Order: sequence, then structure tokens, then C-alpha cells
Amino acid sequence: MKFLHTADWHLGKLIHGVYMTEDQSEILEQFVELADRIKPDAIIIAGDLYDRSVPPAEAVNLLNETLYKLNVDMKIPVVAISGNHDSADRIAFGSAWYKHSDLHVTGKWSPVLKGVEIKGVRFHSVPYAEPSVIRETLKDDSITSHHDAMKQVVASISSLEDFGEKPEVLVGHSFVTGGSTTDSERTLSVGGAGTVGKELFDSFTYTALGHLHSPYAIRDEKVHYSGSLMKYSFSEANHKKMVKCVTIENQEVSVEEILLKPKRDMVILRGSLEELMKQDFYDRKEDYIKAVLTDEGALIDPINRLRSVYPNVLHLERESTERDKKRDRQVREKHENLSDTELFRRFFAYVTEAEWTEELEAELKESLNVSLKGSDES
Amino acid sequence: MKFLHTADWHLGKLIHGVYMTEDQSEILEQFVELADRIKPDAIIIAGDLYDRSVPPAEAVNLLNETLYKLNVDMKIPVVAISGNHDSADRIAFGSAWYKHSDLHVTGKWSPVLKGVEIKGVRFHSVPYAEPSVIRETLKDDSITSHHDAMKQVVASISSLEDFGEKPEVLVGHSFVTGGSTTDSERTLSVGGAGTVGKELFDSFTYTALGHLHSPYAIRDEKVHYSGSLMKYSFSEANHKKMVKCVTIENQEVSVEEILLKPKRDMVILRGSLEELMKQDFYDRKEDYIKAVLTDEGALIDPINRLRSVYPNVLHLERESTERDKKRDRQVREKHENLSDTELFRRFFAYVTEAEWTEELEAELKESLNVSLKGSDES
Repeated sequence: MKFLHTADWHLGKLIHGVYMTEDQSEILEQFVELADRIKPDAIIIAGDLYDRSVPPAEAVNLLNETLYKLNVDMKIPVVAISGNHDSADRIAFGSAWYKHSDLHVTGKWSPVLKGVEIKGVRFHSVPYAEPSVIRETLKDDSITSHHDAMKQVVASISSLEDFGEKPEVLVGHSFVTGGSTTDSERTLSVGGAGTVGKELFDSFTYTALGHLHSPYAIRDEKVHYSGSLMKYSFSEANHKKMVKCVTIENQEVSVEEILLKPKRDMVILRGSLEELMKQDFYDRKEDYIKAVLTDEGALIDPINRLRSVYPNVLHLERESTERDKKRDRQVREKHENLSDTELFRRFFAYVTEAEWTEELEAELKESLNVSLKGSDES
Repeated sequence: MKFLHTADWHLGKLIHGVYMTEDQSEILEQFVELADRIKPDAIIIAGDLYDRSVPPAEAVNLLNETLYKLNVDMKIPVVAISGNHDSADRIAFGSAWYKHSDLHVTGKWSPVLKGVEIKGVRFHSVPYAEPSVIRETLKDDSITSHHDAMKQVVASISSLEDFGEKPEVLVGHSFVTGGSTTDSERTLSVGGAGTVGKELFDSFTYTALGHLHSPYAIRDEKVHYSGSLMKYSFSEANHKKMVKCVTIENQEVSVEEILLKPKRDMVILRGSLEELMKQDFYDRKEDYIKAVLTDEGALIDPINRLRSVYPNVLHLERESTERDKKRDRQVREKHENLSDTELFRRFFAYVTEAEWTEELEAELKESLNVSLKGSDES
């Protein structure tokens, strides 16, 4: 039995003011072609279908069309859950009608889910839920963290009478400990309460996770993140993006990585403006660019000069060199040893052409006295 | 063949700051019980399922549950279209999967719709669409109004080869001429361009309309508004709210009205505050109230006094009597004949206890001169 594991589609994502819908549409076409070639027995989408609870209409259409191609046209069973970016209620709408064609969408967590069997493998959907929701549903006051919550959820799944007779796959959306984070995941909670221990999933043949965007966020034979569909922040610039093709035979798991190649990659280019304008980087012309300029002096309109070559520059940064930092430090130290009056005198000389007089100095001193005293009293 | 015709559910509606979801949930329970009793062959919902393109999650859940009971539990075929309040894209999501259980939801208008046959009657879904959308799709520049658009849509339906061999029902969401309006429908366009002539529907056995909230907005044997599920503004206070039960036999139509009775009605109470506080109106205690007070003098905190008896007062108005109007007119006329200085002197006497002196009068005159001159020059 062979299935594709993907997650974190984030349809409707906006990056630096640019909607990614067109790019997402292209990469999903690749995904559909891939599915057509591989002909998996199922497709698992482990949460964050959309980037927000109310996605733009284009994203709604894109998800509808993609699921239609996969599930109705190609007749591939699909198991999808909602993630922390999705609205559980909105994702849940209509799911009762999808089941007949083996489209299993779970928006809201419920303790009565019995899992879905596809070609001898049972899939258990655990959509993202706040610990408080699971605490109230299970009436278990001891649940205060995501770890506690997942522990009870797993306990309820494992208590199924025939648990383990056939391969069992958990589909979840959590921050499992050991995972490395990026800038485009939304923190589940402050501190450690958001994480879930990997050991909870020991009894499953495979755990298909979403939430962290790196496919290598966890290195484990049986617990996997697929990683996101595309790069969704520059902190992911060095990620490989992929779909994991999972084969389960006689309770044994093997995982194959299938890379996804977007039309426009997301890269960081580092160098002087002059260097970046040279042909060396021209194969990056269509990509989404974060440019880190190493120039030291002033630059005239660097963003528009870059855009004349790279239309999709999203972000520009100036790298402070060691010399910059040393100079800043020196200036600061020098200023720290000057009196207030002397600092003002220099500022005065810098912004006016008038002469500095003793009268001005006397007035300044008095004003300083008054205002400093005033601030002490307030 | 017998079907229920309803429309304008407006789930998620907010009236005077109060969400109607609880009331809508109650009235939909009544509707479900009604359907269970009557056992219709189909249910038609002619648009405006939601009150806005992005309804609150509670409204999404309510629609999901209601359709589930009707279509999955009770196995009644449902034909629903989007109205001008709905988002066509969001309503369309998932509709491909609903069809297998005869839930036919049409979000976006398309010229390739062939209609749906249920027990020998064919239903043609014409969801709300801007004339420009139909103009572009049909590549027909002559379409500039809703009437033109509907004319072409009807022409394309009537051109079906077997049109008219069996009873044909059009399901639409339009402002059909002759209909009377209320305050809670959103105007489709300014002027007459939003209306559609009734004669366009002559070739249909029955036309099931949504948009206007009165079930009697049109008086015609074959063209009907069902009216809204509930009263959605005080201008509908005198409406009867109902579901129309339509029977088609041998191409003959008969329509039965089945009244819906909400837990809380929407009523206008008129009288003096003292009268309204009396027991005479106490059977209205739980209703949504617009109070029109006929008192003439000042009243202390009338809204909270009313709320102590009627917790659901939504709106309060003071009725201006003939005497009020006459007094206003007299005051205005009197003031028009006074000089600016005299007007100010009276105001001064009204707001201070100081004495009016000649010096003040001189100062005022000068100030008036300066400021009036100033305003002329500016």
C-alpha cells in the first residue's frame, strides 16, 4: 500500500504583499501530475490547507479544483485535516457528503472518530485542536498542554479493540519535539506548552505530520513531516520542498522523497549591488528574491535598480560590515564623553549656518536645567 | 410531484446588533419537522442562504447541519442556488461531491447547466449573477441589464431539445417586476436596471424565486416568491412568513402556503410609554420590538424602562404628533424674524445667569461683523 504525504499548502498565502495563488496553482498542477504518474492508493494532507480561517475566493476555488482532479477525476482516496491556520468549522462544511467518494476531510476533532481504512491501512485523523477543546470534550482536567492532549487522543485511538492488527497511520498537525522551526509557522503557544513528545506516536506504523515546514524537521523512521508545499519565508530558502511517498508492506515502512520544483524559487542573493546586477545571477531572474547588499556607502534607489533585472524582489537588506559596526561603536563612544552643551553645539553647527554665541549657550544651559529638573519632578 | 419552495434564509444575519443565529436555528428545526411531516420529493432554496459572503462560523455550522438532516438523514433531494448576499465561489466549494446524494448546490452561473430531473420534473438553477458576468460568458454585448441577462439565460434553457416535454421549474434569485420591496433586501442596482420582467418566465411550469422577502411580492399562478424564512426588518413586521408547498400534476401547478411561526416575532408597538408598560401587550414580551412612543413631553430613560418589560427591544422611536410639528413650524417662523443679536441674547439668557449689558452687545456686534466679513472673504 502506497500513499503520498503532503501538508501545509497554505493556499491564499500573502508574502511581502504578494499573493502566492498563481505559484500555488502551478505547484499543485505538478502535484496532480505526480499523483497521476505514481498512482498512489491514497493522498494525505496533514493540515493548513489554507493560510487563514477566511481565505480569499481564489484559494477556495484552487482547493476545490485540486481536490476534484485528485478525488473525482482520478478517483484517489484523500485524507485531509485542518491545521492551526484553518477554520475547523469552515473546513468541516460538507464533509459528510465527501465521504462517499473516499474524500475524508476532518475539520473538528471528535473523540468518536473510528479511523478510515484504505487498502488495509487505517488512517486516524487528528486535526489541530486547542488543548482546552480536548480537555472539555474528554472532561479531563489534567490536560493543560498540547502534549497532554495528544497523549489522551492517542490513548483513545489505541483503545480500539483491533488496534494494531493492521498498519495504523496517524495524521496530525502538531509541533513535535525535536522539530526545527521557520518564520512562516504560527507559534502554537508561548514556551514549551506547544510541543508534543515524539514518543507518543510509537505505536503507529507511520505518523504523517503537518505544521513544521521542513521535511527534515524530525529525523525518524516512522514519524515524518512532509514539509510545506512551497517555501513560505526566506528562512526556508535552503529547504528542499517535497512530497513523501510512503510504502507500507507487512507493517514495514519505506519513505521515498519526491522533490517539487516551483516555477519561481525563493532565494537570498548576497553581494554588492553591482555584483547582483551582473549576469552571473541571471538564472535567478524570475525567482522571489531577498537581496542582501554588502555595499558600504550610500546607494541611489537600489530596490528599483534591482527590480529592473529581478521583477520579483520581495525584500532588500543592507548588511552591516565589520567596518560599519566598528565605526558605529567609535561614534557612540566618542559621543558618550561629550557634555550635553557640547553635543548640542555640534548639532547646531550641523543644521544651521548661524554663529554659536555665549548668549545661546547661556539660554541652552538654562533650558536644560529647567527641563531636566522638570523631568525629575514629574 | 410535490416540493417545498423556500428562500432568503440569510443565516448569520445581524439585526440592530443582535445575531439571529439562535432564532434561525429554531425556525430551521421547524422547517425540518415540516419536511419530515410532508415528505416532499424535493426542497428548493432560491438563494441568500447566508446574509454575507463570509458568514460567521455558527451560520456555516447551522447550514451544514440543516442540509445534513434534510438531505442525508431524510434523503430529500435539495436544489439550492446562491443569491446576491452569498459568495458564489464559497457556496460552490464541494458541490461536485454533493450531487451523488441529490444535493444540487449551484454557486456560480454557467451556460452548460442542463438542469436536474427529480421525479419527472426538471429544475433549472439560475444563481444570482451580475449582468456583466453573463455578458462576458455569452459574449453578447447587448446585455446591459438584469432583464437582458435573464432573457438570454432563459433563451439558452429553452433551447434544450426536449424543453417542455416534462414540467420545467426555474429556480432564480432576481427582482422580478411588480414585486414590492422591504428594507432588508440589498438593492441590486440603482434605477430600473435591477428588475426582470415577469413575462420571461412564461414558458416554465413554475418559477421559484428568492430575493424579495414578501411571499406575496408577486401575485401570479406560476411565478412565486416564497418570501424569507423569518422577518428580517421592521418593514416586514406585517408579513406572513411561510414555505410554499408546490404540487405539479399533469403540468398543472397548485401552491399551498404553510406558515412558519418563530419563537420570537418581530413587531412594532405604538403608544405612550405608560400604555406600553401595561399588561395589555405582555404577550409580546419575548418578541423583537420596535417601540414607537407617542408621548409628547420629555421621558426619562425610556429604552431601559421598556427593556425591564421587553428584553428584546431593538429600536425606539418618538412619534412626532401634529401638535409637535405645528410647534416646530411656529418656532422656526418666529426665529426667522429675529435679528442675530436678539437670537444670541436669548441664547445667552438661556444658558447663563449673567446680565446682558450694552458692552456685551457692542462686543457681539463687532465679533459678528468681523466673522461674517471673514467668511465672505474666504
